[in-house]
Amino acid sequence: MPQARNPQLNAHGELIHLLSIEGLPREVLHHILDTAGTFLSVNDREVKKVPLLRGKSVFNLFFENSTRTRTTFEIAAKRLSADVINLDIARSSTAKGESLLDTIANLSAMHADMFVVRHGESGAPYLIAKHCAPHVHVVNAGDGRHSHPTQGLLDMYTIRHFKKDFHQLTVAVVGDIVHSRVARSDIHALTTLGAPEIRAVGPKTLVPGDLKEMGVRVCHDMAEGIRDADVIIMLRLQNERMSGAMLPSASEFAKTYGLTPEKLALAKPDAIVMHPGPINRGVEIDSAVADGGQSVILPQVTFGIAVRMAVMSIIAGNVA
Amino acid sequence: MPQARNPQLNAHGELIHLLSIEGLPREVLHHILDTAGTFLSVNDREVKKVPLLRGKSVFNLFFENSTRTRTTFEIAAKRLSADVINLDIARSSTAKGESLLDTIANLSAMHADMFVVRHGESGAPYLIAKHCAPHVHVVNAGDGRHSHPTQGLLDMYTIRHFKKDFHQLTVAVVGDIVHSRVARSDIHALTTLGAPEIRAVGPKTLVPGDLKEMGVRVCHDMAEGIRDADVIIMLRLQNERMSGAMLPSASEFAKTYGLTPEKLALAKPDAIVMHPGPINRGVEIDSAVADGGQSVILPQVTFGIAVRMAVMSIIAGNVA
Amino acid sequence: MPQARNPQLNAHGELIHLLSIEGLPREVLHHILDTAGTFLSVNDREVKKVPLLRGKSVFNLFFENSTRTRTTFEIAAKRLSADVINLDIARSSTAKGESLLDTIANLSAMHADMFVVRHGESGAPYLIAKHCAPHVHVVNAGDGRHSHPTQGLLDMYTIRHFKKDFHQLTVAVVGDIVHSRVARSDIHALTTLGAPEIRAVGPKTLVPGDLKEMGVRVCHDMAEGIRDADVIIMLRLQNERMSGAMLPSASEFAKTYGLTPEKLALAKPDAIVMHPGPINRGVEIDSAVADGGQSVILPQVTFGIAVRMAVMSIIAGNVA
Repeated sequence: MPQARNPQLNAHGELIHLLSIEGLPREVLHHILDTAGTFLSVNDREVKKVPLLRGKSVFNLFFENSTRTRTTFEIAAKRLSADVINLDIARSSTAKGESLLDTIANLSAMHADMFVVRHGESGAPYLIAKHCAPHVHVVNAGDGRHSHPTQGLLDMYTIRHFKKDFHQLTVAVVGDIVHSRVARSDIHALTTLGAPEIRAVGPKTLVPGDLKEMGVRVCHDMAEGIRDADVIIMLRLQNERMSGAMLPSASEFAKTYGLTPEKLALAKPDAIVMHPGPINRGVEIDSAVADGGQSVILPQVTFGIAVRMAVMSIIAGNVA
Repeated sequence: MPQARNPQLNAHGELIHLLSIEGLPREVLHHILDTAGTFLSVNDREVKKVPLLRGKSVFNLFFENSTRTRTTFEIAAKRLSADVINLDIARSSTAKGESLLDTIANLSAMHADMFVVRHGESGAPYLIAKHCAPHVHVVNAGDGRHSHPTQGLLDMYTIRHFKKDFHQLTVAVVGDIVHSRVARSDIHALTTLGAPEIRAVGPKTLVPGDLKEMGVRVCHDMAEGIRDADVIIMLRLQNERMSGAMLPSASEFAKTYGLTPEKLALAKPDAIVMHPGPINRGVEIDSAVADGGQSVILPQVTFGIAVRMAVMSIIAGNVA
Repeated sequence: MPQARNPQLNAHGELIHLLSIEGLPREVLHHILDTAGTFLSVNDREVKKVPLLRGKSVFNLFFENSTRTRTTFEIAAKRLSADVINLDIARSSTAKGESLLDTIANLSAMHADMFVVRHGESGAPYLIAKHCAPHVHVVNAGDGRHSHPTQGLLDMYTIRHFKKDFHQLTVAVVGDIVHSRVARSDIHALTTLGAPEIRAVGPKTLVPGDLKEMGVRVCHDMAEGIRDADVIIMLRLQNERMSGAMLPSASEFAKTYGLTPEKLALAKPDAIVMHPGPINRGVEIDSAVADGGQSVILPQVTFGIAVRMAVMSIIAGNVA
């Protein structure tokens, strides 16, 4: 029973926590995407309010501030009719020296039904899922450089929405891959969903060496990286996570790897351009591209609400 | 079709955003006040909860902190059964260098139905209304020194409630007019609603010169300003917005323009005293006046919830 | 009619505010505990959502930050279907020089139905209850060193749950009693509910002298203090409230008064161990005890939600 070793799945192989895309079977991924679709109206622009989590309490535990991500989860939970409790962890008892696990035990005892966790340390959501009460479900909203699974899932929803099928796709992930929790989630998801060619494009300092072992084609040349791509996922240049003399300046980076209309012309004519936001205009992406006809950056945001609703409603319905 | 040029009104002359009282027709103002009245119980003290915005998401975008104003909008939205998302903009992606319009585009894509905007820059809510998605309605909760339309509307509700009709009224607006977003909103509203005499009362440094062009009588003498007034609107001395050596000290100001029972005796015997709050006791208003029988400061607060509910429910019902 | 002098009770002796356990009759305490029980499911682990406060607005007024306590009240209010408004008072108009009573008058005028108040000054909730509008109910969520009545009530619920009856009980309250708002609430409640032996255990610097007048047995010797106890309430060492050279260091304190398995063996074999949280592991309580079979620290947290729901629903139902 190999599923038993994956803490995200119960003995029946059903999703009970969302910690990482790594290790999730293809059927689980498609089930999440299919469920997300049911929350979108026919024009794919509107997200309907439904009573699936009425009477449940969702706790947003943000050990690291991220207003944007916290807001998307708050909206998703409220669209599911849950009660949402936002915890400003930085100012709370953790500051009084209480351990993470004691905080979690206490919040579980308050009968939380779900923890949405953002943490600077990779693996923190796993630790929480391991130690929290059995009635609590955990969603990873980004941990260290490790993973950001709901962003990965919304990217997959977006690709499936515009490209229908993964089996013929060339997908280029471009930019600051080494500091990105999104890139790893995307690569795991694309691999599981059967995308035949995944490229990691960027300078040596920003592309980790172990990607080749994951079956990813590493390209340090931008033209080579995006040529004939169906999907281009631009990453945010994480200036705030960077340090050290060998890293490129924003203007150097923009010149070589920033996505301009000229570079985009190398991709397939119907290629879509994605970005997790917030965008640095003129750095990793040109305004003409970000606001252009091939950009699907804003649909990503809308789909993100529906995907988070799907994850929350699915895990809340499964027993540990 | 002149309405088409006013971004607050759709082609049918219906309110779709509330950005400023300036330019709103008298019927629109009365429609808001009439609607506000329906949310108050018979004793005018209670505000009932109604399901008019059930399933809608109202985002409080406060680029400038104002707990009091934010709270009144949060209460109003919740009384309408909306989901409310408070965004601490100062700490969010704007800080990461994202532009205002990108932030707005992203929040629109999260399917916000309404933005309540407080901003230090005059005109920011206009910019947002111009660029947000068509399904989003914008309410100005105070922009720079420009406008604070819901405060103006609740002042009009209060006056209409106590005085019934605007056509015979002498209204004195007293104090720090130049730094007040409320004063301009009140003056526009009073003009539109037909008040025959509007006086701006204060020292030269605090009364802007252009008011005369708006048909306002400027009085630097306090006795002249409030004599026979039906309504006295005292403004908060905005110490925190002041700078420069020519401004009066609080004690100088209190002596000349602070509303005491003696000065109040110059007004009509049934004059009402208003103030947008928070009051500086002993500066612009004496405790004996603030807590006295002619003060309607606390009813203003209650009416403010009903007026905000009216604005939100009206604009949410009209299509751009 | 002696009840009329207690501001917590109306002329019929019904609870309208919860300010302090002191002065509450035994029947009122049992009524709260009985009501709390109705909100817990049969396994005492789950707190059900009920519509008792639907349409009511509960304002959390935290003049002093306490994320944990604020969260428990927010959860309790939402489980009662109330709308919850969190006010970050430190950043609001109080900072602009508005008086506490003006803030309260304004929030009352916004038609708050309940204020949950946390304040650094002892007596602040009494002042608020005295001056707020008659339709507003006040709950003290901790004031200075004075009182923390809902914590006291949840402690009583926990003791009654595990020990059934108070009339045979020996209860030891151990540690930093002088800085604890919980200790006083517990002692008043235990006295009212008929516990025959209440012991205050700790060093001279941390046990106030006036406890003897309250019928409490003061023990500076830990072994004497916990011998044959049925209930041990360990208090948090409030390092952040301490100052002065005569206070014990954490390690000194731990050695003498920290609850270890060895010391716990002096109590009755079925003694329960309580703590208001957050715990300082290895200081006032050993991990082996905190996580051991006699610890009821986490049930206290769950019962705390139910007790707060009980208080809120009872006072909201009684007219001033």
